[in-house]
Amino acid sequence: MNNDSASRIVAAVRDKIRTAPPGARLPSTRELVAEFGASPVTVQKALRTLAAQGLIDTRPGVGTFAVPPRTARRADYGWQTAALGSPSARSGRLSATQRASTPDTVRLHSGYPTTDLLPSRLVRAALTRAARTEQALTPAPAAGLADLQAWFAAQVAADSPAGITPPAPRDVIVTPGSQSALSSIFRALVGPGAPLLVESPTYWGAILAAEQTGVELVPVPTTPHGPDPDDLARAFDRSGARAFYAQPTFANPTGGQWSAETAESVLDVVRRHGAFLIEDDWAHDFGIDADPQPLVSRDGDGHVVHIRSLTKSVSPALRVAAVIARGPARDRLLADRAAEAMYVSGVLQAAVLDVVTQPGWDTHLRRLRPELRLRRDRLLEALRAEVPQMHVEHVPAGGLNLWARLPEGVDVDGYVRACEAGGVLIAPGSEWFPAEPTGAFVRLNFAGEAPERFSDGARILGETLRAHLPRGFAG
Amino acid sequence: MNNDSASRIVAAVRDKIRTAPPGARLPSTRELVAEFGASPVTVQKALRTLAAQGLIDTRPGVGTFAVPPRTARRADYGWQTAALGSPSARSGRLSATQRASTPDTVRLHSGYPTTDLLPSRLVRAALTRAARTEQALTPAPAAGLADLQAWFAAQVAADSPAGITPPAPRDVIVTPGSQSALSSIFRALVGPGAPLLVESPTYWGAILAAEQTGVELVPVPTTPHGPDPDDLARAFDRSGARAFYAQPTFANPTGGQWSAETAESVLDVVRRHGAFLIEDDWAHDFGIDADPQPLVSRDGDGHVVHIRSLTKSVSPALRVAAVIARGPARDRLLADRAAEAMYVSGVLQAAVLDVVTQPGWDTHLRRLRPELRLRRDRLLEALRAEVPQMHVEHVPAGGLNLWARLPEGVDVDGYVRACEAGGVLIAPGSEWFPAEPTGAFVRLNFAGEAPERFSDGARILGETLRAHLPRGFAG
Repeated sequence: MNNDSASRIVAAVRDKIRTAPPGARLPSTRELVAEFGASPVTVQKALRTLAAQGLIDTRPGVGTFAVPPRTARRADYGWQTAALGSPSARSGRLSATQRASTPDTVRLHSGYPTTDLLPSRLVRAALTRAARTEQALTPAPAAGLADLQAWFAAQVAADSPAGITPPAPRDVIVTPGSQSALSSIFRALVGPGAPLLVESPTYWGAILAAEQTGVELVPVPTTPHGPDPDDLARAFDRSGARAFYAQPTFANPTGGQWSAETAESVLDVVRRHGAFLIEDDWAHDFGIDADPQPLVSRDGDGHVVHIRSLTKSVSPALRVAAVIARGPARDRLLADRAAEAMYVSGVLQAAVLDVVTQPGWDTHLRRLRPELRLRRDRLLEALRAEVPQMHVEHVPAGGLNLWARLPEGVDVDGYVRACEAGGVLIAPGSEWFPAEPTGAFVRLNFAGEAPERFSDGARILGETLRAHLPRGFAG
Repeated sequence: MNNDSASRIVAAVRDKIRTAPPGARLPSTRELVAEFGASPVTVQKALRTLAAQGLIDTRPGVGTFAVPPRTARRADYGWQTAALGSPSARSGRLSATQRASTPDTVRLHSGYPTTDLLPSRLVRAALTRAARTEQALTPAPAAGLADLQAWFAAQVAADSPAGITPPAPRDVIVTPGSQSALSSIFRALVGPGAPLLVESPTYWGAILAAEQTGVELVPVPTTPHGPDPDDLARAFDRSGARAFYAQPTFANPTGGQWSAETAESVLDVVRRHGAFLIEDDWAHDFGIDADPQPLVSRDGDGHVVHIRSLTKSVSPALRVAAVIARGPARDRLLADRAAEAMYVSGVLQAAVLDVVTQPGWDTHLRRLRPELRLRRDRLLEALRAEVPQMHVEHVPAGGLNLWARLPEGVDVDGYVRACEAGGVLIAPGSEWFPAEPTGAFVRLNFAGEAPERFSDGARILGETLRAHLPRGFAG
């Protein structure tokens, strides 16, 4: 039985019906066999499909007839307006970082590294091996595969100083990517209507997850070296917040990294306020001139809820991240994950664990560093040469992005659209601000495009910017 | 550099430190090289690890010293009580269907079929093929892979009568399993505090998802042939609900299937009330004596929001399901999915699509039917012989479960615990009731255990029940 020829016959008979008068006799099975050069079995299958769709009526011993069409009316979804009411969060428009692109476009907008920066061979081999294991056919535990939990815990333990009890494997909850981790943390540890302190600017996905869960965002200004601890303390006092979401290491978008002193002071403020620090360690594997030093390793009392994702460094197709949380917070989070999604595909967990425990993984990370450095420096150079009015205030010591300021008065959204029309995709800075942007910023990703195309891209960014400079600009 | 020998040295030096006085001088690098037969590079790596852990202090040109230990104190999570407040939903205890079991146990509790009822060969081959594609290394679109969307849409279109415009591929949103679909639907289409009609009894995972999202459950009594449409209309009128969650086909737990007349009447009630019917078609692939006839195929105006899962029929490791929703409801749902999890692993989607489009998939489904029938009938027979006081009121025409009533007065939870102690896992019926259970029910899954063990299991269920019968029981 050939499905393709059956569908071909279905399509052809449908055409016949369209032009035939209602109730017309259709060709017999034998005639259709001859006409399409198909087997009687295939023709019967096509006729069954047409009958199931209500298009033909087969009377045994008599023949097959076209069913008079009912007038297909236009669908009416108007009733849904009353059923759904107004949406609670802002409309689900796509982030600029998720825009599709053509091969001609210079892609500086995406959040993901190009395939040649991924451990492709390890990923394909790991998936192939995982396909042969029991994990390919069984459900996984709600908190994750025990060995993968242990790996995530050991990553933190390796950095923990003496005197601090590092998290145990049971404190690890595996999630299908860090976005799910953010949603669960905001839902389970903050809750709708409750305040959540966030750096400003901060990761747009965190803003989105907070809006979805109805959490009230309270922005705290941040710098490439972290927020001012006094600002943070005041924000805790004023809002009554019990949680602060932050990216201490190679923040997205600014690329900032907190100094050891800032980290210690922030932890003190958080402890004093009986609060959680939600540490998003998204760029753990993307150090360039510095190494990540997660705050979770200095915390023994469950104040730091740590998110570590492998989606960007292992493969965007192996969506696996982990939350490390201790005490009742861990239980609250696990209950939320179980209600939201039961468990994470064991085959993805097994494949990820395979990749990160291969000797090739360390080799890959060592080779990644100079590759990222080359891309960062080449994009910086191209921007300096071609777009002198665009100012990168902080050269990031890690991560995947440059955060650049445009001259005051430039219409950022108009500029970004004009760049896209010119063939370069970049992301408007507004997406990273929980409130009004404090300047005209854009984010440029240096890992999502081949570096040979950076100078072409920068040239277009420069030409387009000159056409968008405010009147009287004398930069 | 050998990681294993470095860890060996780390462990050994840690032991030395434990027994040495604080501040004691430790062996030099050269001495360690000699002692462990390791390279200087490996020894240096071990010392760096120990220094990072705060256990040693290396003074260049002087030597290496043990750091006086800080007293490790017990973690104190007491502060979290104030930060977290009371939980909004019931505690995240595990469902009885998710209990772990030993190989000796007779497992009649689980929600999943045994591995030999899965298309294992197809799954392993599909994963291996998917590992070689681009899907193994790239992010997937938020709504799912276009070809998989088209497959899910075509499944419905094949059943749609003429005159009804079937859903288009863009009306399909791929989710990582049906639990995530339920959470998103309740969040996006009902919302916290709003009423949701549900059959009673109904799927425990739906009750859990509703509690997580803060939806207010309004139970409507149901029968093996569906709810009474007048009951349903009254519940809509009284509650003001705009949605009804139901399993018209081989319901979990009762195994019921709505008659065509009930289905049409329910759809009429739903339309008249400007409401959604959330149709959970979880057992689409598990027909035994009857075929599924999803209500979504009779709906042209977006009243039916349809959930189709492949997790149980393809593999619990390939967590892929789909929601079909039309009009603004589809947009609202897609926005929720994007905020919750961005997208579903493309490698899982590619593997699932591979499986269901192989000729072997139809063969598998054809062979599955008599296997399920054999298991259902053998378990029924064993129960009749060994547990005559347990009454299965409806022999299900599909699905994976028997829903059995115990004599009135039996303490169900105590009985289930005693059965577990005796070596048989079953699930107490209370989990399937959104309110107080209306009788002493248990659910028995006939697909999660080898049928040869059914009569042993039934014998234990019978013996245990005799010990749990209420005083004076004369059944």
